[in-house]
Amino acid sequence: MADKINRVVLAYSGGLDTSVILKWLQTEYQCEVVTFTADLGQGEELEPARKKAELMGVKPEHIFIDDLREEFVKDYVFPMMRANALYEGLYLLGTSIARPLIAKRQIEIAKMVGADAVSHGATGKGNDQVRFELGYYALQPDIKVIAPWREWDLTSRTALIDFAEKNQIPVPKDKRGESPFSTDANLLHTSSEGKVLEDPWEEVPDYVFSRTVNPEDAPDQPEIITVDFEGGDAVAINGEGLSPATLLAKLNDLGRTHGIGRLDLVENRFVGMKSRGMYETPGGTILHAAHRAIEQVTLDRGAAHLKDELMPRYAELLYNGFWFSPEREMLQAAIDHSQTKVTGTVRLKLYKGGVHVIGRKSPYSLYSEKVVTFEDDQGAYDQRDAAGFIKLNALRLRLLGRRDR
Amino acid sequence: MADKINRVVLAYSGGLDTSVILKWLQTEYQCEVVTFTADLGQGEELEPARKKAELMGVKPEHIFIDDLREEFVKDYVFPMMRANALYEGLYLLGTSIARPLIAKRQIEIAKMVGADAVSHGATGKGNDQVRFELGYYALQPDIKVIAPWREWDLTSRTALIDFAEKNQIPVPKDKRGESPFSTDANLLHTSSEGKVLEDPWEEVPDYVFSRTVNPEDAPDQPEIITVDFEGGDAVAINGEGLSPATLLAKLNDLGRTHGIGRLDLVENRFVGMKSRGMYETPGGTILHAAHRAIEQVTLDRGAAHLKDELMPRYAELLYNGFWFSPEREMLQAAIDHSQTKVTGTVRLKLYKGGVHVIGRKSPYSLYSEKVVTFEDDQGAYDQRDAAGFIKLNALRLRLLGRRDR
Amino acid sequence: MADKINRVVLAYSGGLDTSVILKWLQTEYQCEVVTFTADLGQGEELEPARKKAELMGVKPEHIFIDDLREEFVKDYVFPMMRANALYEGLYLLGTSIARPLIAKRQIEIAKMVGADAVSHGATGKGNDQVRFELGYYALQPDIKVIAPWREWDLTSRTALIDFAEKNQIPVPKDKRGESPFSTDANLLHTSSEGKVLEDPWEEVPDYVFSRTVNPEDAPDQPEIITVDFEGGDAVAINGEGLSPATLLAKLNDLGRTHGIGRLDLVENRFVGMKSRGMYETPGGTILHAAHRAIEQVTLDRGAAHLKDELMPRYAELLYNGFWFSPEREMLQAAIDHSQTKVTGTVRLKLYKGGVHVIGRKSPYSLYSEKVVTFEDDQGAYDQRDAAGFIKLNALRLRLLGRRDR
Amino acid sequence: MADKINRVVLAYSGGLDTSVILKWLQTEYQCEVVTFTADLGQGEELEPARKKAELMGVKPEHIFIDDLREEFVKDYVFPMMRANALYEGLYLLGTSIARPLIAKRQIEIAKMVGADAVSHGATGKGNDQVRFELGYYALQPDIKVIAPWREWDLTSRTALIDFAEKNQIPVPKDKRGESPFSTDANLLHTSSEGKVLEDPWEEVPDYVFSRTVNPEDAPDQPEIITVDFEGGDAVAINGEGLSPATLLAKLNDLGRTHGIGRLDLVENRFVGMKSRGMYETPGGTILHAAHRAIEQVTLDRGAAHLKDELMPRYAELLYNGFWFSPEREMLQAAIDHSQTKVTGTVRLKLYKGGVHVIGRKSPYSLYSEKVVTFEDDQGAYDQRDAAGFIKLNALRLRLLGRRDR
Repeated sequence: MADKINRVVLAYSGGLDTSVILKWLQTEYQCEVVTFTADLGQGEELEPARKKAELMGVKPEHIFIDDLREEFVKDYVFPMMRANALYEGLYLLGTSIARPLIAKRQIEIAKMVGADAVSHGATGKGNDQVRFELGYYALQPDIKVIAPWREWDLTSRTALIDFAEKNQIPVPKDKRGESPFSTDANLLHTSSEGKVLEDPWEEVPDYVFSRTVNPEDAPDQPEIITVDFEGGDAVAINGEGLSPATLLAKLNDLGRTHGIGRLDLVENRFVGMKSRGMYETPGGTILHAAHRAIEQVTLDRGAAHLKDELMPRYAELLYNGFWFSPEREMLQAAIDHSQTKVTGTVRLKLYKGGVHVIGRKSPYSLYSEKVVTFEDDQGAYDQRDAAGFIKLNALRLRLLGRRDR
Repeated sequence: MADKINRVVLAYSGGLDTSVILKWLQTEYQCEVVTFTADLGQGEELEPARKKAELMGVKPEHIFIDDLREEFVKDYVFPMMRANALYEGLYLLGTSIARPLIAKRQIEIAKMVGADAVSHGATGKGNDQVRFELGYYALQPDIKVIAPWREWDLTSRTALIDFAEKNQIPVPKDKRGESPFSTDANLLHTSSEGKVLEDPWEEVPDYVFSRTVNPEDAPDQPEIITVDFEGGDAVAINGEGLSPATLLAKLNDLGRTHGIGRLDLVENRFVGMKSRGMYETPGGTILHAAHRAIEQVTLDRGAAHLKDELMPRYAELLYNGFWFSPEREMLQAAIDHSQTKVTGTVRLKLYKGGVHVIGRKSPYSLYSEKVVTFEDDQGAYDQRDAAGFIKLNALRLRLLGRRDR
Repeated sequence: MADKINRVVLAYSGGLDTSVILKWLQTEYQCEVVTFTADLGQGEELEPARKKAELMGVKPEHIFIDDLREEFVKDYVFPMMRANALYEGLYLLGTSIARPLIAKRQIEIAKMVGADAVSHGATGKGNDQVRFELGYYALQPDIKVIAPWREWDLTSRTALIDFAEKNQIPVPKDKRGESPFSTDANLLHTSSEGKVLEDPWEEVPDYVFSRTVNPEDAPDQPEIITVDFEGGDAVAINGEGLSPATLLAKLNDLGRTHGIGRLDLVENRFVGMKSRGMYETPGGTILHAAHRAIEQVTLDRGAAHLKDELMPRYAELLYNGFWFSPEREMLQAAIDHSQTKVTGTVRLKLYKGGVHVIGRKSPYSLYSEKVVTFEDDQGAYDQRDAAGFIKLNALRLRLLGRRDR
Repeated sequence: MADKINRVVLAYSGGLDTSVILKWLQTEYQCEVVTFTADLGQGEELEPARKKAELMGVKPEHIFIDDLREEFVKDYVFPMMRANALYEGLYLLGTSIARPLIAKRQIEIAKMVGADAVSHGATGKGNDQVRFELGYYALQPDIKVIAPWREWDLTSRTALIDFAEKNQIPVPKDKRGESPFSTDANLLHTSSEGKVLEDPWEEVPDYVFSRTVNPEDAPDQPEIITVDFEGGDAVAINGEGLSPATLLAKLNDLGRTHGIGRLDLVENRFVGMKSRGMYETPGGTILHAAHRAIEQVTLDRGAAHLKDELMPRYAELLYNGFWFSPEREMLQAAIDHSQTKVTGTVRLKLYKGGVHVIGRKSPYSLYSEKVVTFEDDQGAYDQRDAAGFIKLNALRLRLLGRRDR
């Protein structure tokens, strides 16, 4: 806290914690606070954040509330979906992918208002602090970063609430006690972790879920939908063209109804520990399955296998917060190069928590019934070629076998 | 066909096609045929194969019928499961993993009976010919290989049936017409492809499935099970210790009941074309999910991520038929090294086609509630360490940002 | 040879072998032959090829002689150099990189003259047949390919010379006997293999080398040069701006003088066998060292390490003939993305077979003396950050250590 | 410094810096210091270290001086050589590979003497602090680590020397002024960095080199040697069997004489900055070339290419200090699996800074003159197989070409 800060841009949700941070920054750093509240589709009213900020003395022209939903899906979620990214084989990276955009916008605002610092409400044990701060530093190397949770002494819930009350920050009733778990939400997913989820042997209680119905309560009738893709990105549901954010919202509705996209995961954090989380990614889960399906008919094997081999690295980079890094951009360049003809339609059946691909077609299909058929293929493929193919693939193994036996 | 063959070991199912091959080998090559029929859990009676072989003049001591189920699961399926292998992100490799064992046993028999050739019934368009033959050549580099489907002129169903009838080979009624699809089965899975499946836009008809109920017809009540692991391999279901093959059979029963493990896939064959298949892998699907779950608490991040990065290559090698290759063995050595402490119990909920992990525990758990907790961790983790961690991870990005801006 | 061919474009060097092929194609296929002779800097007169072709009845308008040197270096050698490509750790891929361009031009000519086939003089044991033909098929999927060495019965030197003499093809005196080795040359390298090189324990005889002096005969004084790069490509030697091909030629002169770029290698061919070759890549060896050196100061670590991990795959693709494949293009997209700021100057000392980097500088250098210095860095780097960095990197290892001990 | 330390094991060289640390630990932490001095072949007398330690009051039974040369080469250098490890394409990791052994021995001593802490003399900007401390924590998760350079205020040379003089620590004359560069040495290499090397455009001055003659001063006659390998490790030079450490020492003599193994490198440190170093690795450079050469004839392509793809990751792990990590051990398991038959003899020519492989042979050679020969191979290889091999490799590219054109 040695550095003198004049003006700081805070990623401000309007909730209790970031309100306390707002006040703490004003008090502790004696600096001007600029608030930035992003609509990433988390499903909360944002105008209350404005009022709270005003009440705490933030100048109206220093209150930024931006609807970033379309940018979020178009420039972050979709590129990631092109990669079929899954962290540790399962996680669709719903939190990770939102952080770079928030960081980017915060830095833009910092430049606009001439701020010398940025601040966020992520704790010192999690990945989000890393993701925010790597983004800040990559985009504005000389920015100062204030991470109150690593600095202050408000380390217990009681201390936090005491601070709030002393400073006339309203404390909602349900925040008085310990919350049984904590959440993060955006248009792609809701994550829940902590407290009641901390024993990975215990099933996640039903009240933790907020974005999906329990598969057991989902309709008894499956629903069949189509998703259209163009150049690797989804563009229509059931034939209806939709913008990126509205398309994802539509898939979220479908996923919610059918109980799709719940994931109970113990994962490895970048900061070195394991944590247990519950993720709900209703629309993203459908999108992921659909994208793989359309790639099945439109991607060449060489491209598909290279993508599969690069994917874990790509997912790790996103998870660890390296969106704005040369290596992520290089991988993205490779991935995007493969997507030009990833165009066509996928049919899926949604049922009781499951997404089942049941058909795919494309004007650019590489699937050739003529070649693959068990029937007479009229010379499209000469089976005798296979003999030579096998003989030469076997040659090194035969030389090896002769040596080793 | 220039080479003179004296004795050939045929992978013989007892079905129409390999019976025709048996006769064709006797006729065409004027050689003695030794039959080998493996029980890999495909669920068919094998004794009829003995009778048919005898009828076609195979000497009793040249008829080999082996129950390889335990070896199959223990030495092939389980090592592959340790790798979390998925071909093209989705396919559990049920056909691929059976071929090396058949090839190995065929070569063993060839050595025992002094045969100079082996033969199989795989077609010239598929992957199985490659898998069989790479196995043969790796294990016995100088063996001769006869692949009738690439050699003969019985290229239509009619020609095949004519040949059978001329040679007193009984033709079952349901083989007279074209089969609407073809299948391969073993303890791990059943695959179906061809004919009615050849249009990847058309949903797979219900009559294609043989190993699983339709999820829509599965019980309305979920079933909760546990799977115990020791050193990376499953050893018990619901606390009951089972041998590898009986364990997989038990999981198959559970999977069948709950409609688990259906996969409609368009995949890339090693021989260069795309094909569409329907796979049913009931027990394997449960096992895969359970193995990932127990690894979540027992594998270190470094090991887990390395495994994830190596997996696509490993799966590709299996799919392409390179089980008996130095590079597969090298990858296996790396994977197996990681599995010593992959021991513990996973709880899963089976419901309407879905496998949902709901808990995992291990005596070797690396998950530390004490470190990860949102509560006071009593010094287990110093949040201030994160500041330095981020600063040094950011350093190169900051230097880059300064240069590029 | 069942297919009726009307017109074939032959990759024609003008030498004995391809002259025999020319005649053989005319005779055997009763088709019109179009010749294509490329100047890739192999250092031979090309006009004699025209005369020979004419003598054998090729129509003047069907004789194509193209100077492809600039295209070769700019669009093939340089992109490969950006990747730092080395096959099996050592080989600069001088033959591999020339084949795609020849194939591409052959297909262009085939389209221009309405040919239905192409032909080349590569043997059936080597990699070049694969590289040519994969190029042909990728660029013109329905082209017919004639590979005389795999078809004809001129399998001995005597038979070939007999055929030549019977057909009035002049046989140079030095071709009458068996050549002690065979070579391939272009602006990037000369390769030699076969005969006297076939025992990998025997040192390569001095008379095999044609592009470099023996290091022992090189000047006793080192020579210091500079190479300038822009966006990943070399643009000047000793400050003199040069076109791609003239630059490489200049480096070849320097390398020849100083005995640089000899490589005695046993390598693994794509067709499954090991072969022993001697490569001379004088200019390319200097270029490779210089490119790595300029990357050292201009590439971020993330980009550099990703490049190093992708490189072996990239090199394998080139070696195996997959230049025109989606996966090579994807990798190239990633690599090229990293090269924007790979600009600056490298100083090298050439001496007795060695290339020694002795300095590098760049307007886009990421090397920061201020940060790295042992002296007081005035706050550019806070050494205490390292403590947290290490602690969090160690956390997983400590948790592991606690479990395992 | 809050923690109370009772006894600390210091990695003690006997030089000025670690002598100051010794005293500082005694003073600052009021704790007992145990010294550990390792002979890793750095070429210095170690007994003086004993005397200095005694003078500063270390108990005789708390002074550990161990000759670790054989263990160093056998268990650290050789496994790394099996991997052909090169960091950033060029660096043989001479410093990185020594750190884990020192850390391991320090922890062993800490257990023996009941110490609760360990300490080292690495600075806060370098990689060595990370390597030491990751080793400590992996092997003894609860150890306390004291890194004086990150803690104390002796940040200038003057302060350090003042402290020494105040505490009766003898200051050698040549340490009074600033050293023009700093070095690290062991049996594998000597590294130099800092001060006069800090401008990467300036050539390294001649006086920096200590392990090799200038190539220009090396003998005018080349020297030919042989290296024998067994199971991947070198066992003899010129036919004379030698223990690991004596073998490496012998190669160092040869390398020194011929000016082999100098490397001027700008590298990327794990802590995020670029640094410029000069490395001399005379014997290691010869060993690396020889190992690749023996692998050329004894390793199958599949194994060789997998090794090449894994190598950059392996080298990065070593460089970053993760020797004692599950992922390094997994990679080592894979690598070691490949080395069983890496046995045979390599001939090399050493000349003026260059190492030139001129021959290799092995009882387990996979090189087959019979298969590869240009002469009649008597049916060892059927050239017509290549047609089918190419056709099936081309199939996907043709399908792609048809779609895209």
